[in-house]
Amino acid sequence: MKNKLLSLGGEPNLMFVPQKILEEKLTKLLEEDVGLGDVTSSLVIPDDVQAKAVVLAKEAGIVAGIEEVSILAKSVGLTVHAEVADGEEIKKGQVLLKIAGDARLILSAERTMLNLLSRMSGIATKTRKLVAIISKLNSSARIASTRKTAPGLLYFDKKAVIIGGGDPHRLHLDDMILIKDNHIAVAGSAEAAVKKAKAMASFSKKIEVEISDAADVLKVVAAGADVVMLDNFTPSQIKQACGLLKKAGCSDKVLLEASGGVTEENIKDYAKTSVNIISIGALTHSPKALDISLEITKTREKKRS
Amino acid sequence: MKNKLLSLGGEPNLMFVPQKILEEKLTKLLEEDVGLGDVTSSLVIPDDVQAKAVVLAKEAGIVAGIEEVSILAKSVGLTVHAEVADGEEIKKGQVLLKIAGDARLILSAERTMLNLLSRMSGIATKTRKLVAIISKLNSSARIASTRKTAPGLLYFDKKAVIIGGGDPHRLHLDDMILIKDNHIAVAGSAEAAVKKAKAMASFSKKIEVEISDAADVLKVVAAGADVVMLDNFTPSQIKQACGLLKKAGCSDKVLLEASGGVTEENIKDYAKTSVNIISIGALTHSPKALDISLEITKTREKKRS
Amino acid sequence: MKNKLLSLGGEPNLMFVPQKILEEKLTKLLEEDVGLGDVTSSLVIPDDVQAKAVVLAKEAGIVAGIEEVSILAKSVGLTVHAEVADGEEIKKGQVLLKIAGDARLILSAERTMLNLLSRMSGIATKTRKLVAIISKLNSSARIASTRKTAPGLLYFDKKAVIIGGGDPHRLHLDDMILIKDNHIAVAGSAEAAVKKAKAMASFSKKIEVEISDAADVLKVVAAGADVVMLDNFTPSQIKQACGLLKKAGCSDKVLLEASGGVTEENIKDYAKTSVNIISIGALTHSPKALDISLEITKTREKKRS
Amino acid sequence: MKNKLLSLGGEPNLMFVPQKILEEKLTKLLEEDVGLGDVTSSLVIPDDVQAKAVVLAKEAGIVAGIEEVSILAKSVGLTVHAEVADGEEIKKGQVLLKIAGDARLILSAERTMLNLLSRMSGIATKTRKLVAIISKLNSSARIASTRKTAPGLLYFDKKAVIIGGGDPHRLHLDDMILIKDNHIAVAGSAEAAVKKAKAMASFSKKIEVEISDAADVLKVVAAGADVVMLDNFTPSQIKQACGLLKKAGCSDKVLLEASGGVTEENIKDYAKTSVNIISIGALTHSPKALDISLEITKTREKKRS
Amino acid sequence: MKNKLLSLGGEPNLMFVPQKILEEKLTKLLEEDVGLGDVTSSLVIPDDVQAKAVVLAKEAGIVAGIEEVSILAKSVGLTVHAEVADGEEIKKGQVLLKIAGDARLILSAERTMLNLLSRMSGIATKTRKLVAIISKLNSSARIASTRKTAPGLLYFDKKAVIIGGGDPHRLHLDDMILIKDNHIAVAGSAEAAVKKAKAMASFSKKIEVEISDAADVLKVVAAGADVVMLDNFTPSQIKQACGLLKKAGCSDKVLLEASGGVTEENIKDYAKTSVNIISIGALTHSPKALDISLEITKTREKKRS
Amino acid sequence: MKNKLLSLGGEPNLMFVPQKILEEKLTKLLEEDVGLGDVTSSLVIPDDVQAKAVVLAKEAGIVAGIEEVSILAKSVGLTVHAEVADGEEIKKGQVLLKIAGDARLILSAERTMLNLLSRMSGIATKTRKLVAIISKLNSSARIASTRKTAPGLLYFDKKAVIIGGGDPHRLHLDDMILIKDNHIAVAGSAEAAVKKAKAMASFSKKIEVEISDAADVLKVVAAGADVVMLDNFTPSQIKQACGLLKKAGCSDKVLLEASGGVTEENIKDYAKTSVNIISIGALTHSPKALDISLEITKTREKKRS
Repeated sequence: MKNKLLSLGGEPNLMFVPQKILEEKLTKLLEEDVGLGDVTSSLVIPDDVQAKAVVLAKEAGIVAGIEEVSILAKSVGLTVHAEVADGEEIKKGQVLLKIAGDARLILSAERTMLNLLSRMSGIATKTRKLVAIISKLNSSARIASTRKTAPGLLYFDKKAVIIGGGDPHRLHLDDMILIKDNHIAVAGSAEAAVKKAKAMASFSKKIEVEISDAADVLKVVAAGADVVMLDNFTPSQIKQACGLLKKAGCSDKVLLEASGGVTEENIKDYAKTSVNIISIGALTHSPKALDISLEITKTREKKRS
Repeated sequence: MKNKLLSLGGEPNLMFVPQKILEEKLTKLLEEDVGLGDVTSSLVIPDDVQAKAVVLAKEAGIVAGIEEVSILAKSVGLTVHAEVADGEEIKKGQVLLKIAGDARLILSAERTMLNLLSRMSGIATKTRKLVAIISKLNSSARIASTRKTAPGLLYFDKKAVIIGGGDPHRLHLDDMILIKDNHIAVAGSAEAAVKKAKAMASFSKKIEVEISDAADVLKVVAAGADVVMLDNFTPSQIKQACGLLKKAGCSDKVLLEASGGVTEENIKDYAKTSVNIISIGALTHSPKALDISLEITKTREKKRS
Repeated sequence: MKNKLLSLGGEPNLMFVPQKILEEKLTKLLEEDVGLGDVTSSLVIPDDVQAKAVVLAKEAGIVAGIEEVSILAKSVGLTVHAEVADGEEIKKGQVLLKIAGDARLILSAERTMLNLLSRMSGIATKTRKLVAIISKLNSSARIASTRKTAPGLLYFDKKAVIIGGGDPHRLHLDDMILIKDNHIAVAGSAEAAVKKAKAMASFSKKIEVEISDAADVLKVVAAGADVVMLDNFTPSQIKQACGLLKKAGCSDKVLLEASGGVTEENIKDYAKTSVNIISIGALTHSPKALDISLEITKTREKKRS
Repeated sequence: MKNKLLSLGGEPNLMFVPQKILEEKLTKLLEEDVGLGDVTSSLVIPDDVQAKAVVLAKEAGIVAGIEEVSILAKSVGLTVHAEVADGEEIKKGQVLLKIAGDARLILSAERTMLNLLSRMSGIATKTRKLVAIISKLNSSARIASTRKTAPGLLYFDKKAVIIGGGDPHRLHLDDMILIKDNHIAVAGSAEAAVKKAKAMASFSKKIEVEISDAADVLKVVAAGADVVMLDNFTPSQIKQACGLLKKAGCSDKVLLEASGGVTEENIKDYAKTSVNIISIGALTHSPKALDISLEITKTREKKRS
Repeated sequence: MKNKLLSLGGEPNLMFVPQKILEEKLTKLLEEDVGLGDVTSSLVIPDDVQAKAVVLAKEAGIVAGIEEVSILAKSVGLTVHAEVADGEEIKKGQVLLKIAGDARLILSAERTMLNLLSRMSGIATKTRKLVAIISKLNSSARIASTRKTAPGLLYFDKKAVIIGGGDPHRLHLDDMILIKDNHIAVAGSAEAAVKKAKAMASFSKKIEVEISDAADVLKVVAAGADVVMLDNFTPSQIKQACGLLKKAGCSDKVLLEASGGVTEENIKDYAKTSVNIISIGALTHSPKALDISLEITKTREKKRS
Repeated sequence: MKNKLLSLGGEPNLMFVPQKILEEKLTKLLEEDVGLGDVTSSLVIPDDVQAKAVVLAKEAGIVAGIEEVSILAKSVGLTVHAEVADGEEIKKGQVLLKIAGDARLILSAERTMLNLLSRMSGIATKTRKLVAIISKLNSSARIASTRKTAPGLLYFDKKAVIIGGGDPHRLHLDDMILIKDNHIAVAGSAEAAVKKAKAMASFSKKIEVEISDAADVLKVVAAGADVVMLDNFTPSQIKQACGLLKKAGCSDKVLLEASGGVTEENIKDYAKTSVNIISIGALTHSPKALDISLEITKTREKKRS
């Protein structure tokens, strides 16, 4: 599971959605912000003014959201030219997009475009940073996100993680079976829960289960788990679990996921274990937005025909 | 404009929306996460199990989102008892809500509830912290947010700011007239733009304008501005603008807003000027989610009647 | 607050909304009327007929809704040419729009287009008439609408008022703070309610309060009201309130709004006071639709390629 | 087709829609008006206040919308007691509904409730007035509305017409086949269009056709029309068409509809012909809203449990 | 009511809906299938590949859904060329549509397009087969569908019936009045129910009533029924009802509908009576999908500009 | 992967969705059918009549949709008692549900309820029949559905398959990676496509690939496929693929799916191979609806209070 993505300048879109469907999502976001009308632009900007704008990075990072902003801009009637592709490293001061069209339109959509772009780029930047750290250690582990996104932004947050070179993990509750501590608290034991899931689940789903004691790893693998989540394990506890699997000769039948307590500071210690996935909620629940702004220039008064 | 809110244990709800309407918003968020079904709970949890759960703070802060989570939990059919009110200071380990009902329901809604609560509480906590810092200086300035929210979360992000003791600022584009640098780039000059707005705007709207040079403050006030945004002014530049207003005898006719470059570290310097509003985009574009979790306990098998 | 709008041939669009968002609103209106299909056009009109149509005024007035109808027509695939702009005075018999395209499309959308245009034009016509009456008296008062619109048509009704030269007043409940008799009945007194609002409200909102006794005007102004609504005051009671303000030297700090009982017949008496705003619910709750119709001509059978 | 409805105190609901579906429609209307929150009630009314309110007629008429307002009030969590039923004659000063519950809720929903009630009652009042005029002449004609409603309000406007004792006519475009002048302009002739429709239409639909010359009435009846619309016919032209039908012995096979130019003043002349339906666009395109208001009283502070 | 449709190569569209509205319906269907993204195409197909595809019939039948699939394909950005028109007889192996564009787009929309096309074509094929059977008998009866469609697919299922040469019957509950056994069980008697409906219904609606005894046919006709549904009548019972009508001289005033128990095997017996309509629920509740598939070919890598 | 489900009387709900979310889906289905109102019930049934109804099986089968119908009935305000659980075998004449409440409500929702129940039961019945056939052979193969559902009914169709004892297979396009012939046509070869997917896909997804030649099975397994779809293989070709896997010692690392050409008649031949999954599109694209009806009885006139 060596991460091949890092070497690329721009990541392929691993969350392909027909543009028409994205347009609907994006229009709803814009609609919320506009309310009954952009009263400021209405008053201050004549309705016959054409303008140009550049979207500029005010700090370095990995850009994400270029596709979304381009679709939104086009769908409201602006022309847009992307100067960078999602996943590229950008520098402070770099122009990301050039936009042209009706000045009121640009001004009405400005904030929605920047909010998307700066959030997604913030997530991609942090993800790429962590991927880079562990790549230097020749770790084959994947950095994964969780479902701890901003409410309603699963698509955008997960896509930004992919663009950063991370693994989106489960997309929503109808995806992979993931038996967590709270399921086990009701179901009885991790082993029993996995057996039940294995007997009844669709063949199309993987089964992951959370354990809190390394000693349980063999039991849940025997019961049919495809992935085992090691919840709040220290690196040495992780090594213990890996050792048990190796000894039992089933390292290649199951993936181990370290979850909880991983930070930029201690991630190297996790990467040095042979864990396969390192998941980090903060990637999407507390991303620092990348500083990106838009600068407009008036071009000409539109002639009324 | 002394901030009276800080002294209260729980803030009044300054964004009242009939519960029925909130239910619709919240159900949409849940729907996105559930997809075609919570396959894990379906497989692992029998459909006749009742459970109890507590929602716990795993770090201290100001809680926000209790109303939203309570409405969501009730609307899906759970019983819920809030142990704290929005705006209260909470301690690590404190129980925030007690929830009871069908175990599958609790597990399906868990992540949506926690995502809302931890984001809103993170915003409220940061806001309250800044309010507390400047309150100690006897500043009468208000800490305000911007429209730099997560896309689609204007309501939730703005409400969390209010709960933290901050000012929500303009809610969306049909609210107060706010003439920013990009409007001025097209319209010609700040003064001209304010005059135009004053002549044509509804009497029901205030007019705010951004200036980048202290010397312009009297011009825009004369043109009719109710609020002046001092964009990226240093504290000493702000004092200069305040001085000009005072000398012209119009300090009480206009509000000044400091915007750009304010951080937790330097906010005291801004508070020591007589600026009226200090706005900070990071409150809503880069909040650190408060760590909150849910712990479930099985209570009994439901008898089929 | 002299009304500059009247002199213009066509009003600027003071409720700018990106066309894409309007399209969604307009499509929903059309969808309601079409139901599962336009059975008449389906049966009677072959699917390969092209037609032209003109939209005609059958009485004189001020036209409004040209933008909406143009967007709707284009969005369903018709070509449309507006012969007049929103806000223009139109004569009986005048052509307002020329439309061309698939005959079934024109016939399916005809009624939705005309319903919008005749309602909006009716509102604009009545508004302009009142504005004209008081303009002749050199009154600087603004004619304002209320939230008494047809349910669900806030955007269209308010926009028509603006096009007629009126003031839209508060757009919805998240706009200006407006403390009315029913709020006061619960809150205790107008003065107390204004104080409470002033202490807690966002700096970005104006505060208006309704009073029923001229003697209260100074109290509510002292408490912080930006606008005072004089509810069902006679012109002489209004003059009394104006006098009190003048005497107290605060005429320029506050706006007065006359509300209730104003008609086309008595509006001159109100305009002769120095009241700033005259609001009239009937502008939007009981507008007389302007008589506008559509006439179609077949052009040719479309060749199947 | 004698109108039996007039004798009833309250009309039966002839547009039955499951309440759950109406709730969705009504919530959308409320949502538009609330926006991001009722800022006034939030600031001025504590969140623990219970109140009572009465909805009062400020002028006499026929009430309509009681069912809708009751559903809306209940669905947001208020208790409501209707003092009158849809279709009843109400007097000035009469209490229509009593509402109780959270004061903020009542105030947030007040305007949406009143806008619905006053529009629907205005339509019902006007309809009933015309029905009464012609009933005195022992006319068996039905007063019918058209599709000239406020955009998006087909359901509410048509229902109000029924409550007033009128005929809703075609509900939307998938209802009865109605071949109008514009269809004929494309299709060639009324007779040809009716023949085409008759050959291909579903057996479940009636076919109506508009004619502009009395002489055409027998042709379109022979072609299969069930109803003939006499467009802008004078009463004497209508009599001529009736005479032709009588002479041909087919009076009982077809209905005649007078459309265009009918007013409160001249309706008697139409009623004196033996026309079956008199349709009047103004019933729904230009109704005068009935004056209805809400008065609130605080009852008590809610104790926090 | 001789069926003229059968002779045509392609049926006219008798359910005309503006394309923009269909696009919304179709996009929702696609959206459900795509979820958060087409992960397979995202991974396997580069984002710069253009492809061509043909939609092929794998069995013979009557094609329906060509319009819908064309609109869906165009609306997501594909170019599409229909090789056949709705209603045409197609052979095994025949190309129905040619599609070109972004390979991922084609693959993402493939299943939604085929599901629509194969269901609609299956319905049309079965309908046409039955129409052909009775046409050979020179029957003038119409084959009609019912409201027993797949839930939510009223438009598509009814349109497919029309394309097959059948009668859509009532479209939904606001269409023709249809008094069935369950209404009568509550209302008392068929005759009473028809009288009530006749007295109060809009003139624009036909009235149909179900009877279970041939002897009742004259009573319900006298009461005002336009159509009589003969529920589960044998062909000889139908003849009895026809005889009664003929004897009473009112065969031409009323239509008779045979409903229940009609199959491909026994339909000739029904067609030999003089019944006017033969309705068959299975047309839409249990259609056999026509086997249609899509074959794609890569054309070239798109150059990045 | 022995099928344990068959032994159960009623299947557990393996597609758990919070009831509130199902209510929204179901209300939309009802809304489509009601249109602007149930005109028949409105006219014929007084608004104060209470009724009881039973939902009856008119043929034997496996019932599915009981949960959906119960939720729909409750959500519109009816009381409902399910006499059977989803997945039970039902006999001709058996009562499935008892419903009580407002007569108009029952009649308005009748068809939507029955359409859901008869489609879902038809799918479950067919699925169970096939499961039973192969269970007798001691086959451990699973009967699986495909994405060939009625458009827009993925949730309902897939759930019915599960209730019948089948495997839902991939739920939508964001679920398991499934590389089909059309992907391969663009991507080059099955092996290359699997390698690409394996390198880049989220660890949380299984990878399935379609092959058309048994000889390819080892290549795609080596490349990382978790499941191999044998497209239109005869039973003997399937045995060949199984043999290759066995010989290579990797039978337990991969699942084989037989797809295409399987019918009730020949399924035994497939079951006798050691294939793991047998998928059948007809389960959901061409189900025969189970015959289910509703019978109503009037109980009493509701007293007006």
